[in-house]
Amino acid sequence: MDKKMKRTRIADALHGGLVGQEINIKGWVRTKRGNKAVNFIALNDGSTIHNMQIVADLASFDAAQMSQITTGACIGVIGTLVESQGAGQSVEVQASAIEIYGTADPATYPLQKKGHTLEFLREIAHLRPRTNTFGVIYRIRHHMAIAIHTFFHNKGYYYFHAPLITASDCEGAGQMFQVTTLNPDSLPRTEEGQVDYRKDFFGRHTSLTVSGQLEGEMAAMALGGIYTFGPTFRAENSNTPRHLAEFWMIEPEVAFLEIEDNMDLAEEFIKYCVQWALDNCMDDISFLSEHFDKELIDRLKFVLEKPFVRLAYTEGIRILEEAVKNGVKFEFPIYWGADLASEHERYLVEVHFKTPVIMTDYPKEIKSFYMKLNDDGKTVRGMDVLFPKIGEIIGGSEREADYDKLVARANEMGVPEKDIWWYLDSRRYGTAPHSGFGLGFERLLLFVTGMSNIRDVIPFPRTPNNAEF
Amino acid sequence: MDKKMKRTRIADALHGGLVGQEINIKGWVRTKRGNKAVNFIALNDGSTIHNMQIVADLASFDAAQMSQITTGACIGVIGTLVESQGAGQSVEVQASAIEIYGTADPATYPLQKKGHTLEFLREIAHLRPRTNTFGVIYRIRHHMAIAIHTFFHNKGYYYFHAPLITASDCEGAGQMFQVTTLNPDSLPRTEEGQVDYRKDFFGRHTSLTVSGQLEGEMAAMALGGIYTFGPTFRAENSNTPRHLAEFWMIEPEVAFLEIEDNMDLAEEFIKYCVQWALDNCMDDISFLSEHFDKELIDRLKFVLEKPFVRLAYTEGIRILEEAVKNGVKFEFPIYWGADLASEHERYLVEVHFKTPVIMTDYPKEIKSFYMKLNDDGKTVRGMDVLFPKIGEIIGGSEREADYDKLVARANEMGVPEKDIWWYLDSRRYGTAPHSGFGLGFERLLLFVTGMSNIRDVIPFPRTPNNAEF
Repeated sequence: MDKKMKRTRIADALHGGLVGQEINIKGWVRTKRGNKAVNFIALNDGSTIHNMQIVADLASFDAAQMSQITTGACIGVIGTLVESQGAGQSVEVQASAIEIYGTADPATYPLQKKGHTLEFLREIAHLRPRTNTFGVIYRIRHHMAIAIHTFFHNKGYYYFHAPLITASDCEGAGQMFQVTTLNPDSLPRTEEGQVDYRKDFFGRHTSLTVSGQLEGEMAAMALGGIYTFGPTFRAENSNTPRHLAEFWMIEPEVAFLEIEDNMDLAEEFIKYCVQWALDNCMDDISFLSEHFDKELIDRLKFVLEKPFVRLAYTEGIRILEEAVKNGVKFEFPIYWGADLASEHERYLVEVHFKTPVIMTDYPKEIKSFYMKLNDDGKTVRGMDVLFPKIGEIIGGSEREADYDKLVARANEMGVPEKDIWWYLDSRRYGTAPHSGFGLGFERLLLFVTGMSNIRDVIPFPRTPNNAEF
Repeated sequence: MDKKMKRTRIADALHGGLVGQEINIKGWVRTKRGNKAVNFIALNDGSTIHNMQIVADLASFDAAQMSQITTGACIGVIGTLVESQGAGQSVEVQASAIEIYGTADPATYPLQKKGHTLEFLREIAHLRPRTNTFGVIYRIRHHMAIAIHTFFHNKGYYYFHAPLITASDCEGAGQMFQVTTLNPDSLPRTEEGQVDYRKDFFGRHTSLTVSGQLEGEMAAMALGGIYTFGPTFRAENSNTPRHLAEFWMIEPEVAFLEIEDNMDLAEEFIKYCVQWALDNCMDDISFLSEHFDKELIDRLKFVLEKPFVRLAYTEGIRILEEAVKNGVKFEFPIYWGADLASEHERYLVEVHFKTPVIMTDYPKEIKSFYMKLNDDGKTVRGMDVLFPKIGEIIGGSEREADYDKLVARANEMGVPEKDIWWYLDSRRYGTAPHSGFGLGFERLLLFVTGMSNIRDVIPFPRTPNNAEF
């Protein structure tokens, strides 16, 4: 086989412009079927959900070689791209030469033709990219990342890397993982008997970040608009289909945006991502719609159709109380001051308004210290974007720009000033109105793929008792 | 001041198309000078290195307000964009209204007009984005990230997220940070008295990854081509201008690429990034050239000019031995089997070839277990891209695709098979020739910015005894 012949990606070959030409296709065997005269091999190379049909005339190929071509094997094929006579594909490759790169013993290869449960595939996360489902999901994941970078780049916002290892634990977003190089069998101790973190790698106690927001704000107060896109961590012992210990987050932070501008940005942003998916991933989305979630495409179009409803928390509570009065049953009680549960959010979105909702002006007690206090002294300019099926997809706020108010709120919430001296500096010197929000990347992917378990939209999920691979 | 008037970014206003129009500019004061009749304010909003000159006729503004406009203050200005009479700028804004968002007390604001050392600025990493130098660096950092995504996206390679928290420590790339939720004051113990990591969050001992390569290969063996772009960690106690404990790495991994293809990819990739910088960041690069590194632009063009020299390690050693014979002095000894030091790499690039060098076919003893063994049984298909000033900028290899050879090499290098069962599966089932490499993002930035300390090209550097902010 001619090693120097350029490889053609199956996605490109399927477009049909190369019909009549000799091409070189490489990929993994999905299925092989046929009769005594001819074999049909469905080959996939990851460039598309669609396989290329390889037609091998058995008169031209060694039977021993052909018998090695089983599901999961990797082969290279040279042949002529022709219009297909069969149903199910428009073009196929009439093979003139086949090279086997790697076999896959049918007796042990875990991914045979038959369907597998998602649970089983999680146990072989190193092989699941070879399935149709996960090829689809990882391609969509890629496209959503590119959409995000493109959106912000076009706005003139800069991609900014917040640190992962942090000595700060004031964000209040959740439990943290400790990062250390101390030997647990010979921990250094202070005179008082405490672990002496001055001897640790960073000379202090350090953890994995739960958010890059505070550092991102420092950059926004100089560069104008920035966004982070990086991993964040939560050490909560939450074994649910919605929680990961390690996940990716996008956090734009923009100077001179007030809460209304922030809502505009969030709505434009998420619609841009969904539109990108429909424009660029339709083959993959159709596969998921067919196999997992018949309503997926309708749900994606649903969020594009109308402006999101903008709703103050207080009004939202009134609607939910009204619903309860009219006989709607919720698991969790609803009252002014309560943190909304997913059931409440979904009621507002799916039943009451039938459109995504941006809820604002939450009671200050249930939100973080850095959110801008409203004139009523009771509510803050937080905003959550609520979506069908998944509830909260974005959380953000206008930030408190006033130094004195910020210090007062930090004190109220028990955040020590000495831990946020640098954050306070941004309000001490040249403060400006600014806003931002966070989007959990995997939450977005749950929405765009229609998958129901977050472990299926990240390549190697980290959850309690699970860090394999 | 009209709150609803749309803000114009200074980068856009400076293009001049808006001359004669009333615009709204917001940003931070770099300097203010003037006389009794008029003040000139240099305003920067992060959209460009260039400031907008604001002209304030003192007859129209309150003296008390004007006195608050000092270096570091944040203001909004409405005024008419006019062609400038003064030298140094083509347009300026004749202010009709000024709003002060935040003052910056000259008695305490750390960034006064005078120059600051880079060492001092590292201590106020939360404020250094407000300097010209770091505005420039973070904009270039953004552009290089966008260049990287664009390059791979255009090739049809997928952005793939390898896990950060890992139970695997077989890559051999360096010391690792432990990740734990165990309470050091009440560590669970096994019957044998060891720390019982089964009680830790993930049910086992976990660390921060040193590379996403092995997981990336799993994806390449299904999706064809992927790249990672994420943080990686090294716990080495290296307090040098070239080392970080937390840094970002780009690791493409591509099926069906052999070593020559891999060299082509690396060369095309890095030239693409450098060309992008010259095309999109010239104002910022010119600033760095003027203030830090007069040879910067020449060095950037240098790598674009010629094909990189491709040189086998054995031949490289011969050249270096010849140089020693001719009187060249190196600090470290040179002999076949030695790991090259930066001085050797730079000699080859800067003195001998006067072009970047891709060195290949290293002795297997000094490279990782996963590199493809050559037929000589002594060398492996590793490749390092060597650059002027910084030495190695990329390290990669063709990967060992043969199951038996890979197992043998793992055993030789002391990598336990039980720890890489999943990695070996990729060679057990449908293996394929494939290659990849790693580029340290901050190494690229050192090259593109000409900065000499790696702590100055990442927003919040993490190094021994340093995790502030």
